[in-house]
Amino acid sequence: MKIGFIGLGKMGYNLALNLMDHQHEVVANDVNTEQIRALAGEGAEPAWSLEEVVQKLEAPRTVWLMVPAGEITGTLIDQLAELLEPGDTVIDGGNSNYKESLARNEKLRGLGMHFVDVGTSGGVEGARDGACMMVGGDEEIISRIEPIFTDTTIENGYLHAGAPGSGHFLKMIHNGIEYGMMQSIAEGFDILEKSQFDYDYEQVAKLWNHGSVIRSWLMELTQNAFSKDPKLDGIRGVMNSSGEGKWTVESALDLEVPAPVIALSLMMRHRSQEDDTFTGKVVAALRNEFGGHEVVKK
Amino acid sequence: MKIGFIGLGKMGYNLALNLMDHQHEVVANDVNTEQIRALAGEGAEPAWSLEEVVQKLEAPRTVWLMVPAGEITGTLIDQLAELLEPGDTVIDGGNSNYKESLARNEKLRGLGMHFVDVGTSGGVEGARDGACMMVGGDEEIISRIEPIFTDTTIENGYLHAGAPGSGHFLKMIHNGIEYGMMQSIAEGFDILEKSQFDYDYEQVAKLWNHGSVIRSWLMELTQNAFSKDPKLDGIRGVMNSSGEGKWTVESALDLEVPAPVIALSLMMRHRSQEDDTFTGKVVAALRNEFGGHEVVKK
Amino acid sequence: MKIGFIGLGKMGYNLALNLMDHQHEVVANDVNTEQIRALAGEGAEPAWSLEEVVQKLEAPRTVWLMVPAGEITGTLIDQLAELLEPGDTVIDGGNSNYKESLARNEKLRGLGMHFVDVGTSGGVEGARDGACMMVGGDEEIISRIEPIFTDTTIENGYLHAGAPGSGHFLKMIHNGIEYGMMQSIAEGFDILEKSQFDYDYEQVAKLWNHGSVIRSWLMELTQNAFSKDPKLDGIRGVMNSSGEGKWTVESALDLEVPAPVIALSLMMRHRSQEDDTFTGKVVAALRNEFGGHEVVKK
Amino acid sequence: MKIGFIGLGKMGYNLALNLMDHQHEVVANDVNTEQIRALAGEGAEPAWSLEEVVQKLEAPRTVWLMVPAGEITGTLIDQLAELLEPGDTVIDGGNSNYKESLARNEKLRGLGMHFVDVGTSGGVEGARDGACMMVGGDEEIISRIEPIFTDTTIENGYLHAGAPGSGHFLKMIHNGIEYGMMQSIAEGFDILEKSQFDYDYEQVAKLWNHGSVIRSWLMELTQNAFSKDPKLDGIRGVMNSSGEGKWTVESALDLEVPAPVIALSLMMRHRSQEDDTFTGKVVAALRNEFGGHEVVKK
Repeated sequence: MKIGFIGLGKMGYNLALNLMDHQHEVVANDVNTEQIRALAGEGAEPAWSLEEVVQKLEAPRTVWLMVPAGEITGTLIDQLAELLEPGDTVIDGGNSNYKESLARNEKLRGLGMHFVDVGTSGGVEGARDGACMMVGGDEEIISRIEPIFTDTTIENGYLHAGAPGSGHFLKMIHNGIEYGMMQSIAEGFDILEKSQFDYDYEQVAKLWNHGSVIRSWLMELTQNAFSKDPKLDGIRGVMNSSGEGKWTVESALDLEVPAPVIALSLMMRHRSQEDDTFTGKVVAALRNEFGGHEVVKK
Repeated sequence: MKIGFIGLGKMGYNLALNLMDHQHEVVANDVNTEQIRALAGEGAEPAWSLEEVVQKLEAPRTVWLMVPAGEITGTLIDQLAELLEPGDTVIDGGNSNYKESLARNEKLRGLGMHFVDVGTSGGVEGARDGACMMVGGDEEIISRIEPIFTDTTIENGYLHAGAPGSGHFLKMIHNGIEYGMMQSIAEGFDILEKSQFDYDYEQVAKLWNHGSVIRSWLMELTQNAFSKDPKLDGIRGVMNSSGEGKWTVESALDLEVPAPVIALSLMMRHRSQEDDTFTGKVVAALRNEFGGHEVVKK
Repeated sequence: MKIGFIGLGKMGYNLALNLMDHQHEVVANDVNTEQIRALAGEGAEPAWSLEEVVQKLEAPRTVWLMVPAGEITGTLIDQLAELLEPGDTVIDGGNSNYKESLARNEKLRGLGMHFVDVGTSGGVEGARDGACMMVGGDEEIISRIEPIFTDTTIENGYLHAGAPGSGHFLKMIHNGIEYGMMQSIAEGFDILEKSQFDYDYEQVAKLWNHGSVIRSWLMELTQNAFSKDPKLDGIRGVMNSSGEGKWTVESALDLEVPAPVIALSLMMRHRSQEDDTFTGKVVAALRNEFGGHEVVKK
Repeated sequence: MKIGFIGLGKMGYNLALNLMDHQHEVVANDVNTEQIRALAGEGAEPAWSLEEVVQKLEAPRTVWLMVPAGEITGTLIDQLAELLEPGDTVIDGGNSNYKESLARNEKLRGLGMHFVDVGTSGGVEGARDGACMMVGGDEEIISRIEPIFTDTTIENGYLHAGAPGSGHFLKMIHNGIEYGMMQSIAEGFDILEKSQFDYDYEQVAKLWNHGSVIRSWLMELTQNAFSKDPKLDGIRGVMNSSGEGKWTVESALDLEVPAPVIALSLMMRHRSQEDDTFTGKVVAALRNEFGGHEVVKK
């Protein structure tokens, strides 16, 4: 297939290469012309504007966006909506909030166009050699463009999950589970670290990847991390987050699903980003008020 | 009544004064002879040893311990068990773990002696002018010595809660609830502090003490605290804890009661005592492994 | 002052009476004409339509809405915006989400009108005899209409909290704290209930209201509840919720404030509304898969 | 090696077979003589009493216990302590609490004997064909008996974790992490189930095992479970637990490590075992008291 591809960052560039490896033709665009030039050097057809992307494709067109979630995605889809024709398809491969995907789908549907949302997991390496893709979209469109997903994913790493929005929703939940799993692993090692025993964490993680119930890719990464820095002495425990964990908790609240573990995984990340908390000050002040418990002065 | 009173720290000294205000005779002992001398100056009968405490009382004796929970309490009760006679009573007014109180009751019961456990709330001021006491003990003993509780508590501030152990258990739960309430208040103010609005926290706490659902003594203390330091700028948010919160959570686990709020209140205190966490390091390292997310170097 | 008053439900009706007790003139409207007629019988001036409310007031007008939060509030404000004149003021006394209040303030400000948001606590009784009110609005407007707040609140039960939106935000946080406090109290009694001791909960709650750290209006209500049904045998533990707890957690997430206790208080409410959970099924199925642990068949 | 093996339940029987596969001689004992006879039929040397186990081994003896954690383990170790000689070793392969293992190690050490604690993961299948073993014990003993561990574990599935007690501690933490991971996965699917989308959970789990960040053995088991019952309609969501999750949380409390995710995973299990909660009743009664909110009658 011939595909318009917008967004040649780390993920997008590698995914575009992956597409080309599988004999797809890529019309490549990015705000950074260096990236366009680089991918053109690998065989892509350069397009220096959205207009050119659209002109270089034949109807029904397929344009794959691989840009940071948020405003940019919205702006690009709005611009494409003015350039494309009924029957054309826009794929959003970024980590967009599924509510925005639902709205974008409605908008494009109103113009006779199609929207496909793709949640992608597997990192840069996956983008290059075989990712895991969760795809939402209408059946008739997906069946037409499915090869671009089956070709660029690992075996069994592609699922047409359901209606438009279901791909990003599924990716969001995937990340929510990931938050919980990571926090679980980390709490376990924290207790080991404070214990009276003297464990070799790399060995522990390696062991747990062989025959134990908790063997997992995340535990393999844990092993890797400890192999480089046995006590993680070199880093601070600041746990940043992008949006999906938060959206998962918000969805849990919307749907009235108790999800304490995912919620707490997120909140402990927020806690890690602060050196001190107002919560702590209030409790310390209260303990001082009623019990005369000493406070720690600054 | 004439009462042996051991332990003349902040709480004990004031409680002894309170007893004397109500025409009880106090035979006072402490490891710190200064304190004995001081209380003797207020009218107490000094006793320079446990033996002397026992000798200066007539059977059936009542000896009230007001010492820090833990080993000291156990040691003193063991020593008293050798000095006292069947029919005598030992009162533990400290914050002992109810499991230890149950064991001490069994031991004394085996010697024909009695054990009474008193959970005390209300702080030093309460000890002096009228505390809140939760008392566990056998009915026939409690009915005999009840005046020392009714006299030293605020009106309606005394309850014979049940069998031996039930007083300390009830005090433990009281403190567990206190942990949860304090954390609730503190989280609320933390969200206010991070909000776009500019609240006067003393005014807010004062308002909430007048007609709102959350009016409470803790909110009054919150008002006091903010009246002294409007943004609590002078203190660190380090939330220490003594044992009762932990015991409450352990009891919840033993009894299989889900108590997430009390458990989290305690765990956030533990979190506040650390500058950095191993949990955080592990999660940060994992995010770096799979997503190339930057870590914060030390 | 002469005030338009729209919404004569339980809260609104009593608040209108309260206003009239303090010599304010009330022009009363409600969708339910029975309620208008009833309040007219108490001395209010009836208005059978929004138009009539507006006509019966003189500029600058003040119209107080006391209707259920949500769509109705929005619709009424939109309609009033077309009927009122620059300089007039709309007060929203309902439990609106502060984000909507911010938007409504912007809209009215654009028309030269004023918006005041009032979070009200204290229940029906408070509405009648003296509530607790948290008020957001511009200084010059508040100073003009302040008597209607000071007159209808308990002493010290009124606060001009800050800019428009700050009243509803503060009420939201108040309710979040309330969620945490209630769950704290409830967990405590749940542990008592599962313990080996046999407590009289009414007596326990009464005791805790006299001299203890956790004395509070909520504990008084706890005492009342147990006085009517000593073990709460007659009711199911279904904990419903209106919106404020959820909004508090969402605000905590937006502001990246860890608020585990308020979040869990809400999530345990959601849990209580389900007889069985899909979460539980998945865990039970997994335990069966790896350990052969028996599942409970339906 | 020749090994005394006590406890021929599901795990023990298969582990004994595994040992014999690797040319170890097994002297087999169990309270159930059927099991002894069965294993004798497979080539084990039967022993009808502990005395016989000891007699049939030559010093320095090695006796492996594979019995349910708790009292039985303690009783057997006490009995063996009287039968064995200095220099002999007792291996506890059950899921014992590490604190008991520390105490047992002290006791045996006082008698000149050795204690080795083995945490075993991988289920019955692992016991038969290659388990994952976390072993605590003194270096010189471990190095002598190590073949029985390396032979019966999967490749890289054996670790000498450290001093006595460290094996059971590590297994405990392993299970704590397992609780958190399982709850994470389950919460994710619960949100999917309540969502507007219509996912095929078996397909989702399968997808997530191919190239995603959360691929894991537990996710494979999730796939298996959904392949048998697509919506888990046949089972109740009752999540039982054995001791390790609880011990992990208790250790976290002892060591003052915040471990909210593991704690909540356990508490949600406790919640799932109740149809209704006293917590819920108290909150519902309170809402009724202050807001007149309807309660659900039984």
